[in-house]
Amino acid sequence: MRREITGYSNPLLKHIRSLREKKHRKRAGQFLAEGLRIMAEARDAGYLPEMLFRVTGRDLHPLEKKIENEVLAAHGDVIEVSADIMSKLSGKDNPQAIVGIYRDHGTTLNKIDRDAAPIWLVAQAMRDPGNLGTMLRTGDAVGAGGLILIDDCTDPFAVESVRASMGAIFTQKLVQCSWDEFTLWLRGGKGQLVGTSLQTDTDYQAYRYHAPCFILTGNEAQGLPAEYTATCDMLVKIPMRGQADSLNAAVATAVMAYEVLNQFRR
Amino acid sequence: MRREITGYSNPLLKHIRSLREKKHRKRAGQFLAEGLRIMAEARDAGYLPEMLFRVTGRDLHPLEKKIENEVLAAHGDVIEVSADIMSKLSGKDNPQAIVGIYRDHGTTLNKIDRDAAPIWLVAQAMRDPGNLGTMLRTGDAVGAGGLILIDDCTDPFAVESVRASMGAIFTQKLVQCSWDEFTLWLRGGKGQLVGTSLQTDTDYQAYRYHAPCFILTGNEAQGLPAEYTATCDMLVKIPMRGQADSLNAAVATAVMAYEVLNQFRR
Repeated sequence: MRREITGYSNPLLKHIRSLREKKHRKRAGQFLAEGLRIMAEARDAGYLPEMLFRVTGRDLHPLEKKIENEVLAAHGDVIEVSADIMSKLSGKDNPQAIVGIYRDHGTTLNKIDRDAAPIWLVAQAMRDPGNLGTMLRTGDAVGAGGLILIDDCTDPFAVESVRASMGAIFTQKLVQCSWDEFTLWLRGGKGQLVGTSLQTDTDYQAYRYHAPCFILTGNEAQGLPAEYTATCDMLVKIPMRGQADSLNAAVATAVMAYEVLNQFRR
Repeated sequence: MRREITGYSNPLLKHIRSLREKKHRKRAGQFLAEGLRIMAEARDAGYLPEMLFRVTGRDLHPLEKKIENEVLAAHGDVIEVSADIMSKLSGKDNPQAIVGIYRDHGTTLNKIDRDAAPIWLVAQAMRDPGNLGTMLRTGDAVGAGGLILIDDCTDPFAVESVRASMGAIFTQKLVQCSWDEFTLWLRGGKGQLVGTSLQTDTDYQAYRYHAPCFILTGNEAQGLPAEYTATCDMLVKIPMRGQADSLNAAVATAVMAYEVLNQFRR
């Protein structure tokens, strides 16, 4: 349905604002994606928003019109608001002119087909939503199947994560589970678990990866727990030529993922 | 000199707080680095803070003591404050227990020895301080000489950039200049300028890089201006297997930089 909301105290607006907090996203099973670019990626991946908010009185981009019509055809809502209200919704002075409310599409391990992709990313206790979103974006770029989140990771459906993913939140499968659940599932089929470590002499380019390859990245500050590295099929080392001994977690994942992709495409 | 500040209205505290803003950093020629880990990296790279703030009444880490003594020996200040005041200084509820005020060490192109390192990073109009700090951290890891910032980049001495650099702000040379200044300097000696682009068929692994190699990364949203890509000695393409057509800027830089390093170390 198409309608307009003009009052700041409208309960729906309050609900949308609440989706900036994880507990409200969980409860509602919904999350926010801002801007046409990400919403276009969502559409290409087969996802339409349940609700689409847009600033009233603008000329619409043809793609925006197309998405609107598809939302209406799917019995979703298109809601026009003032620029002021959009600013309140997004918490920003210069908000995007369009925002979509999507259904949370996290899945479970038993619904994952590990043979659907040669590379899978696995992140443990990732704290920074920007890093997590960037990992999703990298996963999309290397043709990974998805991102498996172990232990207490930051919420992939947080606005900052969705934004950093540049739409990959819609193309990558997302699973949140415990380490035990993950290893049990992993060992129930084929697949290689690879982690990076400073405690190994194996250069990350010296090892021959095979699909499906699961690339494991640890928490930004602590790295991987010893028990987790012990479970890996292989630990490899990314060369470090400077004073520091580690890379940003999303960067380390990307360097590993491109090495695996480069081997697979030879 | 060692002393204690107990009053919130102390003018020095006001000055330190002001260093969170670029214009005040520029004016004072100073910037802030938080936490022992980054301050230890600074010390290893030969940098001591002009002033060191720390929360009073804690047991000091041996390295903290060492840095304190060196600061005092260099006629710097060690200033003890309450946890509350430190919280005000850092703008955070759980601040680091130690903060250093360092002299801005940006340099100029004519002071750069391009043969001092095989790899140099060049960023154009980088907007995100996290990306910029992450690029510095990656530069350190691949043994780059420094980061050259073109056009209107975010300030590398911003707290978020310093934090993301994990200390590499102290190991990497930093230059801010115009495109014309950069190209004039670049062409005055040897060196290869390489950019990434979608408008090329040359795979980033198919090209043979040679030192000194300058890796050029464009603005997060717009990428490189056409004039800049036209100046590159080579444009290469990082393979993209997914739906999206670009990587995070800091990730793209890292993927490129590791390919160059990997070729050089063969």
